[in-house]
Amino acid sequence: MPVRPLTDFSRLCVHTITTKPWSIEEATDAYAAAGVRGVTVWRQWLEGRDIGKVGRSLRAAGIEIVSLCRGGFFPAPDAAGRRRAIDDNLRALDEAQALGAPLIVLVCGAVPGQPLAESRRQISDGIAAVLDRAGEANVRLGIEPLHPMYADSRSAVNTLRQANDLCDQLDSPLVGVIVDVYHVWWDPDLESEIRRCGQAGRIFAFHACDWRTPTEDMLNDRGLMGEGCIDVPQIRGWVEQNGFDGFVEVEVFSNRYWAMEQGEFLQKIKDAYSKHT
Amino acid sequence: MPVRPLTDFSRLCVHTITTKPWSIEEATDAYAAAGVRGVTVWRQWLEGRDIGKVGRSLRAAGIEIVSLCRGGFFPAPDAAGRRRAIDDNLRALDEAQALGAPLIVLVCGAVPGQPLAESRRQISDGIAAVLDRAGEANVRLGIEPLHPMYADSRSAVNTLRQANDLCDQLDSPLVGVIVDVYHVWWDPDLESEIRRCGQAGRIFAFHACDWRTPTEDMLNDRGLMGEGCIDVPQIRGWVEQNGFDGFVEVEVFSNRYWAMEQGEFLQKIKDAYSKHT
Repeated sequence: MPVRPLTDFSRLCVHTITTKPWSIEEATDAYAAAGVRGVTVWRQWLEGRDIGKVGRSLRAAGIEIVSLCRGGFFPAPDAAGRRRAIDDNLRALDEAQALGAPLIVLVCGAVPGQPLAESRRQISDGIAAVLDRAGEANVRLGIEPLHPMYADSRSAVNTLRQANDLCDQLDSPLVGVIVDVYHVWWDPDLESEIRRCGQAGRIFAFHACDWRTPTEDMLNDRGLMGEGCIDVPQIRGWVEQNGFDGFVEVEVFSNRYWAMEQGEFLQKIKDAYSKHT
Repeated sequence: MPVRPLTDFSRLCVHTITTKPWSIEEATDAYAAAGVRGVTVWRQWLEGRDIGKVGRSLRAAGIEIVSLCRGGFFPAPDAAGRRRAIDDNLRALDEAQALGAPLIVLVCGAVPGQPLAESRRQISDGIAAVLDRAGEANVRLGIEPLHPMYADSRSAVNTLRQANDLCDQLDSPLVGVIVDVYHVWWDPDLESEIRRCGQAGRIFAFHACDWRTPTEDMLNDRGLMGEGCIDVPQIRGWVEQNGFDGFVEVEVFSNRYWAMEQGEFLQKIKDAYSKHT
């Protein structure tokens, strides 16, 4: 089944970190002027701001707040560290509620040298510990499996299957998954695990970018859609065939693009969104 | 079950690329003097040499040739490219036979942008096309799954499960797998897939190094065992509990270590082998 073309920008969401040089105020104005209709706000963009006011300004500009990024990082070597992580996630829920964000992106965390199975248990316990507050705040939690190259220090959840298993275990309508093509494109089980997500009604978000060859930096050398080896339209088709009809979020960390004039970069984002997504 | 300690160097194998500044002649002398009993020879080290003589010199120095590295890279966008890849693998088999290497390491290959499923078919076809010659040469082929961060351009086989599936499909005693901790340490199915390898009698080799945090280069920043987050003794225990009793091959690509005086580095390898493997 061919994927539906993206004929307008009504489903285009940009992450504030994608246009890192812009403050939240600059991003609000520029996204609105460019017709970008969604934003995922990274928490650093809220520092020193009246969070409710940021939310109102975005909505007044016609921009929907798709999610707050990011919570997670639950594992720690000792109980005090794990408690601090839970407290930070409770603060993220306060921020999401104040902002009016319906979803928090969870980068689950890992501790170098701690067995991955132990980190996975701590992640499950950490999410469980904030679920009541998430329910009160009416904010959902999206588990984003991260590429295995981040298993040392960023996430012990590295495949969509693991994210699905974790959701099954937590068994809450507040907990679902985020499919980011950069992290999952290589997975031989990708299509079947997206289907499993869809059947459980838990595809909470879809993140797009591309994998460049060669990738020169493990963090900050992502490409725009069409610049690399990922078949983004195919993966978008799979999430949409399985019930997802939300925003396509452009999340690009790129030293190259951050060095560019950001208005010009935003135009390139729109081109890539129209032609290669 | 605790892993058996490595009380001597009788199972220590070093890859020639680990001590990249040394020629094969220098490596032969230095490994023999240090009591290293096994070597995996990378093909570049044979260029311009009488291959049979290299093999005889190694054996005369008391060094066993564990494998020749590397064959593979079967996928290509066109039939001519795939034919060239098969020809190159036939040459590798000639070289292994001349050297007296009983095993070739296969880095299976990938083409950026070509669907991974298509690359996987081409890998299977490519291996099948050289099996008769492998039988004549009495050389086995070891499929080494590569870390998913190399799925764009180096290998479309990225998990031990995929390697096992490929072996099942090819169904030849000449085809097995190589377990390299760097590539597979993150995999939640690692222990069960090692068991599956063992039951099929196909653990052909075991490669060791470590994953540093942060990893500063996607290719050439591997650590020695003990320097990173991989529980190497646990994985060695799993392969040994499943019937493997061959060499522990130290395969480290490291700009830092290549810049060091290589005799000093070889001593560090022996220390890491004794204490953290």
